[in-house]
Parts: sequence; structure tokens; C-alpha cells
Amino acid sequence: MIQVNHEILRELLESELAKRNVNTESINHCVSSLIETSLRGVDSHGIHLFPHYCRAVEAGRISTHPKFDFQKNAASAGILDADHAFGHHAGSEAMKYAMEMASETGMGAVGIKNSTHFGAAAYFAQQAAKKGFIGWSFTNADALVKAQNGKEAFFGTNPVCFSAPMENEEPFCLDMATSKVSWNKIKNFRSTNEPIPADWAFNGQGESVTDPHEATSLCPTGDYKGFGLGMMVDILCALLTSSAISKDLSPMFTSPIEEKRRVSHFVMAMDITKFSSLSAFKLSLQEMADRIRNMEALGDERVMIPGDPEKHTKSNRLIHGIPVPTPNWEEFLGLNNDFSSAVK
Amino acid sequence: MIQVNHEILRELLESELAKRNVNTESINHCVSSLIETSLRGVDSHGIHLFPHYCRAVEAGRISTHPKFDFQKNAASAGILDADHAFGHHAGSEAMKYAMEMASETGMGAVGIKNSTHFGAAAYFAQQAAKKGFIGWSFTNADALVKAQNGKEAFFGTNPVCFSAPMENEEPFCLDMATSKVSWNKIKNFRSTNEPIPADWAFNGQGESVTDPHEATSLCPTGDYKGFGLGMMVDILCALLTSSAISKDLSPMFTSPIEEKRRVSHFVMAMDITKFSSLSAFKLSLQEMADRIRNMEALGDERVMIPGDPEKHTKSNRLIHGIPVPTPNWEEFLGLNNDFSSAVK
Repeated sequence: MIQVNHEILRELLESELAKRNVNTESINHCVSSLIETSLRGVDSHGIHLFPHYCRAVEAGRISTHPKFDFQKNAASAGILDADHAFGHHAGSEAMKYAMEMASETGMGAVGIKNSTHFGAAAYFAQQAAKKGFIGWSFTNADALVKAQNGKEAFFGTNPVCFSAPMENEEPFCLDMATSKVSWNKIKNFRSTNEPIPADWAFNGQGESVTDPHEATSLCPTGDYKGFGLGMMVDILCALLTSSAISKDLSPMFTSPIEEKRRVSHFVMAMDITKFSSLSAFKLSLQEMADRIRNMEALGDERVMIPGDPEKHTKSNRLIHGIPVPTPNWEEFLGLNNDFSSAVK
Repeated sequence: MIQVNHEILRELLESELAKRNVNTESINHCVSSLIETSLRGVDSHGIHLFPHYCRAVEAGRISTHPKFDFQKNAASAGILDADHAFGHHAGSEAMKYAMEMASETGMGAVGIKNSTHFGAAAYFAQQAAKKGFIGWSFTNADALVKAQNGKEAFFGTNPVCFSAPMENEEPFCLDMATSKVSWNKIKNFRSTNEPIPADWAFNGQGESVTDPHEATSLCPTGDYKGFGLGMMVDILCALLTSSAISKDLSPMFTSPIEEKRRVSHFVMAMDITKFSSLSAFKLSLQEMADRIRNMEALGDERVMIPGDPEKHTKSNRLIHGIPVPTPNWEEFLGLNNDFSSAVK
């Protein structure tokens, strides 16, 4: 494991995408999302994806110069055809429209079709919250979460993300996969050959497994509840935009890299000022969060709200750098030996 | 346990509320919600609450003739002051406004303040889905769900409900408490003095308990994820309407019955036709549901989607009646001996 300076890394990532003829806005959104996500400690959706994205650009899966087509179908509703852009860019463009509509009407909702992997959902909902809106973001993903009483996966890890502005700190942000754990966690246990807890994953027969190498599907979070939230996500993302559902999406890593995946997303923005004063809202959310954090804790623990671990990790990594496992770092050096200058 | 005919019961419930001078619309929504919820097998939010509601009407907690005040603050956003109406009525009124706004703009969102217990969240989201909209409904509730690493409860069981129309059957409906199990389940185990599973509830020191009599707080569903969803619900319901959060709500059953509780709710409606054709949407959701149900199942199980158990229970109870535990039925007979005519 090495530690990487996020500022130097940002420049190197930007330059790699520029060399591949990616447009400036896509570069900005992709790199900003990856760096921010790694700083927040969400390593499953951070910089480790970058070499894969480079290959997807080279093979034509991701458009370097997408032609976005936004159809505003009503004052608060529209659909963005993303033309296979970086999902980080497509989702940001959609959230921009959602906020514009919300500023007029109180609410804006945008479905996004013909997109690609959009990274961490938090990146989009937080864009809204940082501008004083409540934001939601959702995406479908290839099938990984086992159906109730079934043998196989049906929905992806289809995340639900909600973010809202606070008075004294970065927005409140709940970004949750609708599976109990991420597939990345299973992969981590594979790399060390350690057994996984019995309630994380299943084999192809739908049986619970502790050998990570046998896992083919994941347990939904909260059993049928997580599965139901995953279904809500596919209804919003895929059905409203007439796109492929999770079960019909080709896998991100193992399908031919030149293949377009047509991932779909959904974002919503809500203008807080159409309900309350923004300053009163931010103060009351800050007070609620602080009351929770100041509750009496178990032993030496700290009482936390969702997003607190990410905020702590970010303040730490801003100083000490982003940790990258050696095999992953070798992929970066394979792209360009200049990456070595980012090591702290 | 006795079995009760839902049609006769409906008339008797209506007449009891009419005797107490409750307005016709409130009667209709309260009774429709209770009967439908019991038919669907969600006994924690069904007819067993009726004697409590009668006491709350008599004591003045619930208004018999509420003066609703709806402030439409923007084309897609508004706040309804419910004047302490039956929550079943207040939520329905709010959903009516949300659908009206959504028909114009694609989205409608309404916060509801100064309300009372609104029963099952499904009642409201399904109203939207039955009219071809996507519906969401949320409510806060007095504190019952333990904070992460804390000793005590902070949020209520704050449900998240999502409903969408299908082609050949009643709407898809996910209605989930953000706790792992309902408080009612703990009470059921208390009544039989049986131990509860170790991951359901905690004592006042935040320690896991198996004795249901020692339980004072509940485990969130999916750990921090359910707690985070409960926080989202309180942000929408309480913070946007400048109302009391879960932690500051008086308990429904144990606070003085004449006390106003000022529960808050939040509903949203989305007009599907602003994204897709309604018929195509309904067909594609039907197809998705049927594909899941037709997946290969484990042993003799059936693969199900959320809401399927409720649909099966409803078709059964429409024929065989609604089961009511004897102690609860005695409360009904205490209200009026005529209730005996509903027994099958």
C-alpha cells in the first residue's frame, strides 16, 4: 500500500484523459468524482476505477465528445440522453437541469439514459446540497443482488443517495448500496483468501457461502427491504427512461470493453426555500446532527450519523494522502510512469 | 382469535366515528385505511388501532372538523397545515394536491404539519399509483430506533413507502419501516413471554436483549442504512415543515390522550406520462415483476417481490375475514356490542 497526494494525482488523471481526447467537462467531472470519492474513503468507487475507464474510452464504450440531448417534458420533469458519456458528466448535467427546474417549481426530476458507470452516487446529490437544494441520485447496475427465495441475482447494487445542506459542515449525505456489502468487499476477501461472514453472499444455487471465491450474488440490505429499494431504483432509472433493467445490463468489467452498456440513472432536486427558509433548515439539520452525535455512547464508541466516517476519512486523507494497494498502483504506472511523482 | 367480515366491520367503524361527530371525509379515509391495511395483513397499522383513535377523538387530540390550510409555494411544492386531523385524511388531502401539481409539472411534493398518526404509509402512495402516478409517502413517529453506537433511540420507525402502477394487478408497493422489526412484534413476544432474536432490540443501556420486556429501542434495518433513511424521513417531514423531529414527539400511546402530537408527513407524486407512456410503463413493470417471480426458487419457496405477501393475504382475508385477537376484540365490544354482528 502506498500513499498518494491527491492534488498531484488530480493533474495526472486529467492529463491522461486529455491525451485520450476526452472533452474538458467530462475530464473535470470524472476526475473530481474519483478524487473526492477516494478522499472520502469510498475506495470501491474511487480512483482504482481509473485504468478501467481509460480502457473504456480507448475501446469506444465511453464517448469522448458526447452530444447530450435533454428533453424537458414538463416544468419539473425531463429526460437526458447521455450519448454514452462518462456517467459522472451525464449525472452532473442532469442534476444541473434538475436544480434549474427546482428553482422555478420547487422540484426537478431527470431520468438519464444511454449512460455509463457514474461512480459514487454521492457526487451528484452533494452537488445539489452544496447549492442549497435537497438532492437524490440513483443508478442501476448489472445484476448482483439475490432475489428473495430465488437462486440468482436480479437487481444491481442500485444505490439510493440523499443529501441535504448543513450549517457548519459539508452536506449530510446518505449514499447506500441496496446490497448488504459491496462486491468490492467480496473481492478484498478473495485477495486474502479469508472467509466472509455467512450473511453476505450466495453461490449460484442461492446458498449462503463463507468462501468468497464461491460467491456469485449478494444479500440485499435489510433483506426484502433492500431488494425493494433496488427495485424502486430500477423503476426510476430504467422504466421511466425505457432503458434496460439491471438484469439485462452487461457486466461492467467482464463484458467486451467496446460494448456500450446503456446504464440509466435518475436524479431529483428539491428547492428548500419553497418549503422553509434555507438558513433555518440548515440550522435545524445541524442541530439534529449534533444532538445525535452528543448522545450518550456505548463504551468508547462515538455516536455517528451516516457520512461521518467519510468526513473523518477525508480530513485524514487530505493530509496523509490516498492509500492505493500496490497491484492497483502498478496499473497506474503502466498507464504512465509519471504517476510515481504523486507518491508521498 | 376470531374472524371478522370486513364489509360489516367497515359500516360499524364508520358509525362509531359518526357518533363522535367526525366529518364524513375523515371517516372515509380513516376507515378505508384501517380496513385495507388489515386486509393486507399489516396488523400493526390496521383495525386494532381503532379503539385508540376513538379515545383520541373524544379527548380532542384528533380534530373532528379540521380546517386544512394548504399553502402552494411553487408549482410543484406546498405545505398543508392539517389542524390535527386524522392523519389518514391529512395525508390523502396532501396527496391530492401533489397529484394535481404533478399533472401540470411532472412532480408534486407536499409537507404536512400539525397532523396525527396516519396509519399505514401505503395508503397514500397507493392512492397515487392507482391513478397512474408514482407515489412516495413518509411520516415521522416518536423515537424508537437506536442511534449507531448510542444507548438510546432517536428516530421513530419513520417509514419509506414507494408505489407504482402495474398492468395486471394492484400497484407495486414497498412500505418499509426503517427499523428491522416493528414495535408491535416486540409486543407480540411480550404477550407470549417468548424470547426475541438478539438483533431486534436493545435495553436502556443500548445492549442487545432477548427478553422482550427489557426492550426499549429497536435495531434499524440494515444498521446505519436504516438509521440514515429514518433521518432522511425526519428531514423531509419535520425540517421542511418546521415541525418537531421524532426525538421530540410525545409517544402515541403513553402520553396524555388529550395532548396534540403534531406529527409531520411528506408525500410526493410523479406523473409517469411526463417521462414515458403510461401503458408502456405499466407493462414493463408487470414484466419485471413476473420475471422475478418466475426465477428458479430455493426448494419449495416462491420468489417474491415486496408487496406479494400482502396481496396474498388480502385475497385470503377478503374471503375468510380479518383475524382479531380476543383481547383486542373485547375493546371493540366495549365500544359497542353491535360489533358482534361482524364475526364470521
